[in-house]
Amino acid sequence: MHSKIARVTTLGDLPLRDDLRGQTPYGAPQKRVRVALNVNENSHPIPEDVAHDIIARVAQALLTINRYPDREFTELREALAGYLGHGLTAEQLWAANGSNEILQQTLQAFGGPGRTLLGFAPSYSMYPILAAGTGTTWIAGDRDADYELSPQTAAAWVERTSPDIVILCSPNNPTGTPLSLGTIEAVYAASRGIVIVDEAYAEFAPDGTPSALTLLPGRERLIVSRTMSKAFAFAGARLGYLAADPAVTDALRLVRLPYHLSALTQAAAIGALAHAGEMLAMVDEIKEQRDRIVTVLGELGYSPLRSGSNFVLFGGVEDTSAMFDQLLERDILIRDVGIPGHLRVSAGTEAETTAFLEAMAALSSKS
Amino acid sequence: MHSKIARVTTLGDLPLRDDLRGQTPYGAPQKRVRVALNVNENSHPIPEDVAHDIIARVAQALLTINRYPDREFTELREALAGYLGHGLTAEQLWAANGSNEILQQTLQAFGGPGRTLLGFAPSYSMYPILAAGTGTTWIAGDRDADYELSPQTAAAWVERTSPDIVILCSPNNPTGTPLSLGTIEAVYAASRGIVIVDEAYAEFAPDGTPSALTLLPGRERLIVSRTMSKAFAFAGARLGYLAADPAVTDALRLVRLPYHLSALTQAAAIGALAHAGEMLAMVDEIKEQRDRIVTVLGELGYSPLRSGSNFVLFGGVEDTSAMFDQLLERDILIRDVGIPGHLRVSAGTEAETTAFLEAMAALSSKS
Repeated sequence: MHSKIARVTTLGDLPLRDDLRGQTPYGAPQKRVRVALNVNENSHPIPEDVAHDIIARVAQALLTINRYPDREFTELREALAGYLGHGLTAEQLWAANGSNEILQQTLQAFGGPGRTLLGFAPSYSMYPILAAGTGTTWIAGDRDADYELSPQTAAAWVERTSPDIVILCSPNNPTGTPLSLGTIEAVYAASRGIVIVDEAYAEFAPDGTPSALTLLPGRERLIVSRTMSKAFAFAGARLGYLAADPAVTDALRLVRLPYHLSALTQAAAIGALAHAGEMLAMVDEIKEQRDRIVTVLGELGYSPLRSGSNFVLFGGVEDTSAMFDQLLERDILIRDVGIPGHLRVSAGTEAETTAFLEAMAALSSKS
Repeated sequence: MHSKIARVTTLGDLPLRDDLRGQTPYGAPQKRVRVALNVNENSHPIPEDVAHDIIARVAQALLTINRYPDREFTELREALAGYLGHGLTAEQLWAANGSNEILQQTLQAFGGPGRTLLGFAPSYSMYPILAAGTGTTWIAGDRDADYELSPQTAAAWVERTSPDIVILCSPNNPTGTPLSLGTIEAVYAASRGIVIVDEAYAEFAPDGTPSALTLLPGRERLIVSRTMSKAFAFAGARLGYLAADPAVTDALRLVRLPYHLSALTQAAAIGALAHAGEMLAMVDEIKEQRDRIVTVLGELGYSPLRSGSNFVLFGGVEDTSAMFDQLLERDILIRDVGIPGHLRVSAGTEAETTAFLEAMAALSSKS
């Protein structure tokens, strides 16, 4: 018998892939606070009658939960096509466990080792992580002043780097910046590869703003991704989806894990989509709160950017770390997205937004 | 204006990754039949009182479905540790949307381009597909006679190929063959990389069969994966999980998509685990039907292999395609897994199993 000092195994002891060494996992802090305005959730719970309908559908799905789910989730794809409109059909729709999985599958099919993904920084922090996870090389293009992205700037980056995939976040996270259809058209025309338009926050755009869905006809390399997390207040249910040419969904079938969408997910999402009107009624109220944040923060001397989403990025913060902490002391959680002098806040309910704005007013008068 | 003949876009028109060209997606046929014994599902619906409890928990989760789910699914990991026993703690547990995603995450963390995965063919058909999807090179080792796998044979393959990851399916799918702990110990001792033991069907092993979980202490490169799809009759809910050293779960956090497990999945799985005893009561009945299949098929002159799972692979079939079709004509769906002269059948309820065996008797007396 030999004795040795018990030692805890660490990551460094395991044969981890070299490119993952030293990395830390994605992680917005999971803190319990009174006012959580940090991850762009919809602060409104789903209406009770919608919840009852969803529960009835989940109960129905439980009757056959011993069987694998519909691998083609046909009824859900029909419901998503119906919701999006624009003449889309079920064969143009695809869904996954959150739009992260939608993007991962797209990178698995069209990216990977030896291929490149171009995005325009700052943008959604998961893009480079998803690129790394699929062995795709990430290229960070630049934006214009105030994080805008003109057709000329975007197309020049595409021509210079000839990427296999371009991802455009519309409106952009974490800046909230709307994106014109003109930029999307210019990027598509300049590119030889897949163009993804991430419309996670599309429902919060000003009324009458056209979606990239209008550009799909005749553009077989264009993918428009959406999520039910935000406008549908369904972040906990994990349902991302996309619309594209049917050939794109054929490609995704080659890389998706079989039965990737559970029967419970399918039932719950179909239930929510059956009440789209009621679910989306919250969107107008959230847009009001967002506009109020922009107005009040401006009055307080900060520099909020224009936003087409359910959150606001604001500049003019002298010490972002100190302000973050001071808000947290007041049980208010917002997000430091790593842009110097800026913080991001989600538009909450009227009460939550008031709590945030009152705290900001108090902090500003103190300094 | 120019005119052209409208043409449908196909996969060949898209910039698909070269290694995916010409592939067809994984797909067991999704046919509606009276007796479905093709994908090793548990034919028993979950008990009504368990369903009621799950519905109550899902209803509770819907109250906060507008928020992202617990990214660490702590309560679920505690419930899984409690179910598995063996002194396991929550920090040793990890879960994902089906054991396919468990394996995909493991390959993302420890495999990938330039790395290899060794398995022993014939085995679960998803292994090479998951390897391809993550850029990992698949190595198909051989088995001994009757698809057994001795410590010597397995260790020799490990020594010869020095793989980054070894996967052992215990009992093996699609052959049903049990695997001894001795083989797992020999593979671990011979290897420098991760060793995954896929125990998807472990609950169907003969009473007293030790699990690879007993080998975890002191083996930080060992991963034991499980699923709720089979013994828990939960295929539609998509819940795979693993037990390993806490450092392994730290590695998986680097590659998992944030919030990959929905709040509904977490609630439903916790509900099912709270009734583990009742859920697993079906297992004994299924084992009886499996043993009956082995006995009766032997009497009919076929060569069923010994099985520690909820299915039976049987040889001695002259024309597998014809027999598959003749069973399908009788509304009975089984599986042709591509092994010449063999077919695979899942053990169903007593009535389903009777329907299959009576059909086999009728077909055998005809020929």
